[in-house]
Amino acid sequence: METPNMSSTITEMTTTHPAQVDIDRELLAECIAACVECAQACTACADACLSEEMVAELRKCISTDASCADLCEATGRVLSRHTGYDANITRAVLQACAQACKSCAEECEQHAEMHEHCRICAEACRRCEDACNRVLAAIG
Amino acid sequence: METPNMSSTITEMTTTHPAQVDIDRELLAECIAACVECAQACTACADACLSEEMVAELRKCISTDASCADLCEATGRVLSRHTGYDANITRAVLQACAQACKSCAEECEQHAEMHEHCRICAEACRRCEDACNRVLAAIG
Amino acid sequence: METPNMSSTITEMTTTHPAQVDIDRELLAECIAACVECAQACTACADACLSEEMVAELRKCISTDASCADLCEATGRVLSRHTGYDANITRAVLQACAQACKSCAEECEQHAEMHEHCRICAEACRRCEDACNRVLAAIG
Amino acid sequence: METPNMSSTITEMTTTHPAQVDIDRELLAECIAACVECAQACTACADACLSEEMVAELRKCISTDASCADLCEATGRVLSRHTGYDANITRAVLQACAQACKSCAEECEQHAEMHEHCRICAEACRRCEDACNRVLAAIG
Repeated sequence: METPNMSSTITEMTTTHPAQVDIDRELLAECIAACVECAQACTACADACLSEEMVAELRKCISTDASCADLCEATGRVLSRHTGYDANITRAVLQACAQACKSCAEECEQHAEMHEHCRICAEACRRCEDACNRVLAAIG
Repeated sequence: METPNMSSTITEMTTTHPAQVDIDRELLAECIAACVECAQACTACADACLSEEMVAELRKCISTDASCADLCEATGRVLSRHTGYDANITRAVLQACAQACKSCAEECEQHAEMHEHCRICAEACRRCEDACNRVLAAIG
Repeated sequence: METPNMSSTITEMTTTHPAQVDIDRELLAECIAACVECAQACTACADACLSEEMVAELRKCISTDASCADLCEATGRVLSRHTGYDANITRAVLQACAQACKSCAEECEQHAEMHEHCRICAEACRRCEDACNRVLAAIG
Repeated sequence: METPNMSSTITEMTTTHPAQVDIDRELLAECIAACVECAQACTACADACLSEEMVAELRKCISTDASCADLCEATGRVLSRHTGYDANITRAVLQACAQACKSCAEECEQHAEMHEHCRICAEACRRCEDACNRVLAAIG
């Protein structure tokens, strides 16, 4: 099997949605992709930290990873829905997700030199934070 | 089997957490309970609406239910974690959850006289909105 | 605010669903309640373990808690839907949930004397395992 | 921003996990990618169906999409954890996910000629079903 090209599936799903979508669909698809990527990276990073010898020093990282994963997942889902679109929900969830990604990135960055999984996760968090902020700017 | 007393389990889990918790634990447990209740009600209401004959008129309700369920679930999880507590994440997720519950309650209330599941769901949404706002007020 | 009576909300949501439901609705509501209770207990227990001084010895407990929470949450959602009911999905998800609850209970029970949160979580896992098995028996 | 290369992030996260992993990590990363892709496609397809004029004929598709999304998400998370690995949980969740993907693919395939989002979603479901079955074969 070829590894699925997830970004292109997300773009296709966003493009073929029959509802009117007021946000640029390309921008939206990028943000959903960033949320989905970050959610997985955070779930994996939490468990990778848990297996590290220095687990006691990674407590905050593990807990923040878990909450960031939950928020990214919820945000990716909310952004995938356009039926009866409510800008207030979208704005609030994007703000929460950007905040969680920022906090999680700051935490992971502290361990990035020591743990590759923290470095990769921090980068996914920054991409997701940026993507959320771009959609927020577009919504106004 | 006796139906589990969920509220008391949530209170016990909140009380026995070994971390320092700066928010009143009773208030927190009530909010987690409200999130968990609302998430289930919204998931069930979305599917109940989907089975109604007038499904075409319930589109927005179904979609809002689904997003409200996702946010309530994420919020209940974030509030269950106290290790390396980050007030910025908690505040942002509570604001997003309160907004989703408000939007969903307004939508469900329009069908509350016709559909019992919408009435029950709207009440769960209002309880959760209130609970989130009370914790927000406590955090400051 | 009175703490919401979650079990009764779940029962009401199950009772008012307009679709035909072939499983006993009371049994179903009990199982959804057990899933929802267990999901929250496992999320809270994972984070409580993470704050314990002996975190390094609780690694498996934390990871199993997290996966059990994910499965209980998914199962509670699947059981809340009756539109276009598919017995094959319901059976498979109940089996996965019962397995996760069994594994998680066994893990938490090993720390139940030392950590109250593990004792409470283990009990929630056993209730959920039992509830899943009862619905499985009813489906056949 | 370049759209993140999610597959490669998932592969990196799987590769850098410090725990011993008995399953081939490449195979595992492919399955996680397929779960994550399918979860998003199903969430988007459910909402796209909801916006179609013929929504009343798509009820089963919408409900199955929602449950398939929940199971794929839970499975992607479970497969991302290796600390205290429990083959029984992994096997059960993969079986449940493969079943949900099979049921959802069959449903979406019926509307694939009429709705592009159902065609794309059905393909993601088949990829995920296959990926789960390959990991199941490897676990034994």
